[in-house]
Order: sequence, then C-alpha cells, then structure tokens
Amino acid sequence: MKLIDQLKSKYSEISYLHSAAALMAWDMRTCIPLKGAEMRAEALGYISTLAFRKSVSEEVGALLGQLNENKVQEELTEDEKAMVRVASKSYKRAKAIPPELHQKYSVLTSNSEKVWEKARKENDFNSLEPYLEEIVELSREMARLYGFEDNPYDALLEGFEEGMTARKLRKIIEPLKSDLIPFIKKIVEEGELADASLLEGRFNRRAQEKLSRKVLKLIGYDFDAGRLDETVHPFTIGIGVNDVRVTTKYTSCEFTPSLFGSIHEGGHAIYEQGLPISLKETPLYGACSLGIHESQSRMMENMVGRSREFLSFFYPQIQKAYPSNFKNVPLDEFYRSVNNVKPSLIRIEADEVTYNLHIMIRFELEEALIKGDLRVSDLPKAWNAKMKEYLGIVPDTDSDGVLQDIHWPSGMIGYFPSYMLGNLYAAQMYSKARQEIPGLDKRIEMGDVLSLVDWLRKNIHSMGRRYEPEKLLKAATGKELDPSYFLKYVKEKYSNIYQI
Amino acid sequence: MKLIDQLKSKYSEISYLHSAAALMAWDMRTCIPLKGAEMRAEALGYISTLAFRKSVSEEVGALLGQLNENKVQEELTEDEKAMVRVASKSYKRAKAIPPELHQKYSVLTSNSEKVWEKARKENDFNSLEPYLEEIVELSREMARLYGFEDNPYDALLEGFEEGMTARKLRKIIEPLKSDLIPFIKKIVEEGELADASLLEGRFNRRAQEKLSRKVLKLIGYDFDAGRLDETVHPFTIGIGVNDVRVTTKYTSCEFTPSLFGSIHEGGHAIYEQGLPISLKETPLYGACSLGIHESQSRMMENMVGRSREFLSFFYPQIQKAYPSNFKNVPLDEFYRSVNNVKPSLIRIEADEVTYNLHIMIRFELEEALIKGDLRVSDLPKAWNAKMKEYLGIVPDTDSDGVLQDIHWPSGMIGYFPSYMLGNLYAAQMYSKARQEIPGLDKRIEMGDVLSLVDWLRKNIHSMGRRYEPEKLLKAATGKELDPSYFLKYVKEKYSNIYQI
Repeated sequence: MKLIDQLKSKYSEISYLHSAAALMAWDMRTCIPLKGAEMRAEALGYISTLAFRKSVSEEVGALLGQLNENKVQEELTEDEKAMVRVASKSYKRAKAIPPELHQKYSVLTSNSEKVWEKARKENDFNSLEPYLEEIVELSREMARLYGFEDNPYDALLEGFEEGMTARKLRKIIEPLKSDLIPFIKKIVEEGELADASLLEGRFNRRAQEKLSRKVLKLIGYDFDAGRLDETVHPFTIGIGVNDVRVTTKYTSCEFTPSLFGSIHEGGHAIYEQGLPISLKETPLYGACSLGIHESQSRMMENMVGRSREFLSFFYPQIQKAYPSNFKNVPLDEFYRSVNNVKPSLIRIEADEVTYNLHIMIRFELEEALIKGDLRVSDLPKAWNAKMKEYLGIVPDTDSDGVLQDIHWPSGMIGYFPSYMLGNLYAAQMYSKARQEIPGLDKRIEMGDVLSLVDWLRKNIHSMGRRYEPEKLLKAATGKELDPSYFLKYVKEKYSNIYQI
Repeated sequence: MKLIDQLKSKYSEISYLHSAAALMAWDMRTCIPLKGAEMRAEALGYISTLAFRKSVSEEVGALLGQLNENKVQEELTEDEKAMVRVASKSYKRAKAIPPELHQKYSVLTSNSEKVWEKARKENDFNSLEPYLEEIVELSREMARLYGFEDNPYDALLEGFEEGMTARKLRKIIEPLKSDLIPFIKKIVEEGELADASLLEGRFNRRAQEKLSRKVLKLIGYDFDAGRLDETVHPFTIGIGVNDVRVTTKYTSCEFTPSLFGSIHEGGHAIYEQGLPISLKETPLYGACSLGIHESQSRMMENMVGRSREFLSFFYPQIQKAYPSNFKNVPLDEFYRSVNNVKPSLIRIEADEVTYNLHIMIRFELEEALIKGDLRVSDLPKAWNAKMKEYLGIVPDTDSDGVLQDIHWPSGMIGYFPSYMLGNLYAAQMYSKARQEIPGLDKRIEMGDVLSLVDWLRKNIHSMGRRYEPEKLLKAATGKELDPSYFLKYVKEKYSNIYQI
C-alpha cells in the first residue's frame, strides 16, 4: 500500500473511534438512563484514549516521517500534502506532552470542574483558587513543551486557533475597543431600550419545537443527516458523515432562547454537514478552527436570525405560533426587542455589541496569568476592574463575575478568543457574501437563506481543514482579518435601531 | 499484576468496546438519521472487529494458557475458575475458524439476507437456494473445524446452547410431540375458539405506551437502568452495566402486540438488569445461554402475562385505558381471547401450545441439512410435509413457509432450538418457583410479580455465566431438563380454557 493510503487507513480507524465516542457522548446527554452513566464514563474514556493512542502511535509517527520527505511529497496531490501537514502538526503537538502530564492535567481539571460547580453556587472563589493555580502552572509547563517564540500564551492559543497569536489579537482588539466602548456608552446614554418584557409569557413546548424545526430547515439543516433533541445545555455534535446532531432547550416562559439557540447550533451543524465528503475519514474532514466554527453559528444567529430582513419573513410565523402573545406586536417592535443592547454581567447572555468586550476581558486576564503578570489570587479584583473599565458595571458576586465560565476550571486557557474571532470572521465573510450574491438582503427577506448557505458551502464548509484559518479567510474574502467589517456591521445596524 | 487480573483487565477493555458497539447498534435502530447509516455500518463493523480481535489476541491466548495450568488454578476462587473456563471456551471456538472463513461467511450471509428479503416478498425460493446451499456447506466446514463427536449439528448448536446436543433434543422432543399433537387436535376438534375480534379496534398510541410502561414496572424493569423506545422490530439490548434498553412496536388497530411484546422484552431485560454487578466487565457478566434468556421472556409473557391471575389484576387497567373497547367485555372473555390456540403458518404469531411444533420442524430440517440427509432444493417440500404432519396445515406459498424466518439466510443454523428450550426451561423454573414462593398465584393476582422476580434474581439472573445451562437449571430447580413440566402446564391451562 502507498504511504499516503496507509495514513488514510489509520485515519479511517481513528474516525470510527471518534464516531463511537461522539455517539457515546451524545447519548450521555440525551438518552442514557440515570444509572448507566457510571460505566459509560469509563467506556467513553477508554474509547477516546484508544483514538488518541492510535493517532500518536509509533506507526503513525514513522509514516508521517516518511511522508514528509521531499521525494515522497513530490508524488502527493495538494489535498494529500494538506493531510500530511495537518496530521503532522497534531501528531507533534500531542507528542510534545508526556502522557503523565496529560493524565495529571486531565485528573486536575476534572476535579477542578467539580469544585468550580460548587464554588460558583456558593460564591466561593477561594475554594477554586488552588486548582486554578495548578492549572496555570501546568499550562505554562505545557506551553514550554509545545514551544513558542515570544509569548507562552501563543502556544496555548494555537491549540484552538491555528496561526493566531496574542500580538495579532491585540492589534485587532485595539480598534475594536476604542470604537465599541464609546459606541456602547452612547447607546446606553442616548438610545431607548425596547420593551423586552413582550418576549415573556407562556410558550407551549411543541410550538417552540415546531419553530425550531422550521428555522433549521430554512437555514439548510438536513434532517436526514441529523436530528434535533432537547438537553439542558444546547450543543452540536458531529457523530459521523451525514450524522450531525443538534440540541436545544425549551423554557416555558420564553421562546427566543430555543429559537435563536436553534439557529446558532444550526449554523454550527450546517458547517459540519457541508464538510467535503470526498475527504471523509481523513485528517482534512473537520472544521478549520474553533473561531471559524463559531463564525458560522454567530452569522446565522445574529447577522441572519436577528436581522430585520429575516424577521420580516419569519416573524409572521412566530405570530401564527403564538397569536395571543404577538398578534398586536408590530414587526419593528419585535425586531428591536430581540436586539436590545445593554452592558450585562454574564457573557452567554450578552448581546452582539457588548459580547466581544466580555471576551477581551478574559483574553487579557488569561494571557497575564500565563505570562506571570497576574496572580490567581488577584483574579477577582482584576476581573471587576476590567468590567468597570470596559462595560461600566461590576458584579456583586464572583459567581456573576470571574466564576461564571467553566473554561478556566476546565483547563481551556486560550479558548475564549475564538468566540470573538467568530464574530469578526462572520462579519467579514457576510460582507463578502453580500457583494457576491446579488440582492442577498432581498433574498433573505423572501426567506431564501439557502443562497447564503451555498456561498458558505463553497467558500468555507467544503474546504474542510485544507487551509489554516487565516488562509481560509483570505481565500474566501480576499482580505486579511480586519475588525472594521464587524464595527461597520454593528454600527450600521444599531445606529439605525437606536437612532443615534 | 496477577494473571487473573490481567485477564480481567483485557475483558474490561472488551466490554467497553462491546458497550460502544451495542450503543451504535441501538442508535441505528432508534435514532440515527437516514443518511448516517452508511458510515455507521462501517464504524460498527470496525469496533466489533476490534473487540473480537482483542478476545482472540495472542496475549489473551497466552494468558489463558497459563491460567489453565494446575498450579495457577489452585490459587483461583471459584468465580475466577469459571471466568477462565468461559473465556477459554470462547477463545478456542473463535480460534477454530480461520479469519478468512469468518470473513467469507460474514459476506455470504450479509448478501443472503438481502436476497432473502426479496425472495420472501416475491415467493421465490429458487433465488435463495444457491445462498442456502453455500451456507450449509460452509456451516458443515465450520462444524468440522469446531469438532464434534457423532453429529456435526452439535458443533453448531453448541454456539447457541452450551452442552446441548441433537441427541438430547430428540429425547425431549419425542414425549412433547406425542402429547402435543393429539392435544392440539383435540382442542381444534372439540374446543371452542374465543372471539379474537374483540381485540381489534382503534388504540391510541400514547395509551399503549402508558400500559407498556406500567406493565414493565410491574415486572420489575428498572427505568433508571434502561428505557423504552419504539422500533419496527422489538428488541432488548444490554448497552452496559445498568443500561439495558427495550423497544416495542405500537400498531393502531391492536394493542396486545405492544402489551405482550413489552412484557416479553421486559423479561429479557430484567434478566440483564439482574446480572451480578460484582462480576461486571468479566467473562461471567452475561446471560447463561440463548435458551435461558428466552425462558425469562417467555415466562413473563405467557406464564405471567397471559395468566388468569395476572390478568385479573391488570385487566381493569386495560379497561380503564380503553373503556369504549372493553367496558362490556368480562375478564374471562378477554382472558380466553389472548389465549386462543390454533395451528397457524407463522411461527412468531403462534400461540404457546403450537409454538414448539414450529421449532421441531426447523430443528429436524436444519439437522438433516447439516448431516447431509436433506438437500436444500428439497427443503420447501420437506417443510410442507412436516407442517402437514405436525400442525395439519400447509402454506400456500413458500413466503408463508420455508421463507418466513431470517435465521437460515443469516447463517444462524442451530439457533431455533433455543426458542423451544426457553419454553421448557420456563415451565420447569416456574413450577419450582410456585413450590418455593408461598401463594405465588395469589400474589400475582394482587399484582405482586416482584416475588417471582426476586426468585429469578437469586436463582437465575445473579448467576451470570457461572454455570452452563444444564447445571444452572439443575441448581435452580433440583432437576434435569424435563419436558413434562411444560406439558403439565399447557394441559392444565388449556384443558381448563377449552373444557376438554
């Protein structure tokens, strides 16, 4: 067998194991009976470890060694070269960390998550502090092992967003910050908030599910290659080729969380449903990066889902689903109510204008921790100071502040920036799509989101992991990452809404 | 690590792989989206092969070799000795067949199943004939490789019911046959069939599900360690410790299939839920045999579920669920209608009196095929002749005759007898349980099935695979397998019903 076919064959096996593990994880959150969870955790751990071990086996290492030789490379197609590049990178990264350190980190973060749950409930940062300290310490150690040029944080960031660095982030953040902070201030001072209470009421669960299904179909989600279920925390999971499942959560007093949650997860899901089938079971069959993944969900949720164009098409269906709630509410009022901008404490509830500021705070703090410029014990104070500076509000408790997110207790340092990058990528892509698709706004007003999806399929989804995020964005939009697209988008949209 | 602990550790890994495979199979029949099935089949094949390879690895072989040495055996507990015995036996059996033959058989039977589906639909035995011929030929080859004393059929039977032989079966069948055939004839000639049309009507799906859940709880099924879903073909599957799932099928014009189907699957499921947790992930954590498994489902479905005692407790709930159908139907009439005895063509629809005759026909034919006493081309004729002889009726088409079951096209020769053995085991166990549990009939009349379940837990379920079926039955009932328990049971019940 040719070397590259040997690699593909290994990756087929790995993808089967990942598929099994993904199904086990999905089932654990949707179907599993109460008492079955204990053995499932063990079995899932075993299958995941098997997949990991296979990807760092000596055999794969030797194969990659040979495949990276010049004379072998010459024989490869472009896709095959990309497979070798992606596989080599992930192999090298995995091998950089000794198994004992991996194991230690995994036990530490698993315990730390449990402590965090309690700490958050009881507003007790002190109990989490020693865990965070050890997480920071081990993360610094791992950064050293991964290797970096001038900033250990970059080595961690790389695990979530290939090619991104703290320096690049800072260059993006500066103009964002200097424009967004006064813009938000202006909205708060001069704008008039819509009456969000009109979104509250009693909302039948089945009607919510029907709306979720409708909207998922509208944005191109293929129910023959996926399904929608209910879970406490919504998520999207790719279980295999043509099997990408989404979940949502229905609450009886509001329907917008399930509606926009479904659009958000749907955005993630159509990305995975649109991966290049010709590359299935290879290292290239996957999302380009977390940031690119998030761009797909944020674009669908905010730029499409909360747009006046889309709602002018879809709002009548909402009115039909809940006549007693909305028959007397005009479109414009509904549109404003789902686009309220207001500095708030909790990231996951933040509107699309203030959201990035939440991320900046986290990025600046976690980078300082990893560089050694900030001590864990000073984290709550530093958090509150930045909240004051960027959003003008300070949480009463750490539970609503530094303890709100699971990411740090889970050991995922370097993850947060991908949320912000998702917003920026999305705006830049959407701007390009509007240039290239004649009358896109008009189309969306007619309920045709699929023209946009086609563009995304062609330029983003079908690329898989062929390119790094920077290169993918450049190929799709013709430009380097530029935050001004996002700024232009929010300023136009919200100046109009708030008449400022 | 001690040798036995090394074996246990291997079996832990195997059980995790089996658990993943079982979940993948369950999901394939309940949840999977249409287009996801293709990759799932590949992934499931891979995981199953991985589990199989692990169980026949050189490492396991060497371990078992050492564990079977006298001086090592002396150090083992009784359970550990049983583990070594069970693992060695399955190792030896698996190793007896070369992988290429395994592969060939697997491809052949997979193709043959597809041909059978079409052949059955089109009443076309000829198209299936060459496949069956090859299946018989390869089965004979496998029997030779497994090894046998005087009958190659025994080597196949052993794969489904350890310790059973054609000779033993024949000894059981003779008295059954000579008693059942005239008894059935008497019922047909002198008995008066109940009006089964009272079971037909319109039955709400949700009400059926509620009854299924009620009855499952009554027979001790633990919903915290399992779940009930709907599928085209009902089944029970053990996905892991404390995760044993059942399915049923609801039809709108009859509710008895889902009710008795749920009790049947529930009988299987409480067996697996009751396996000894202390032996989890070892070779002993499983059902003793297919026949013993079937005894649990048939006992619950027929001896409990269709008994006058149980129905006198449960029928009022049926009446409450379907007042317009049953409010004017007295218990006795309902009881008789779910216990109609009538020779019929289709095994899976047969009543409990004629059922075993269907099995005898299949046993006698498949044994003759394997011994070379019957040619595949003569199978339809032989089938019809036996139907005439045992049940007094002959199918108009092969679709309702020799083509009705998937077992032979699936290559499962030697499987059928376990259905009959299930009935016989069940009657013998039930007789013993009635001796040992004071007032069992009365208890069941009060809705207390759990006293019986306790007895089964103690004597059957909690034994796992410690003993072979013969030994288990002897330990539980004090007697060798004796078909007279079954004869006594049906004769008492049905003489009473038909007043003969």
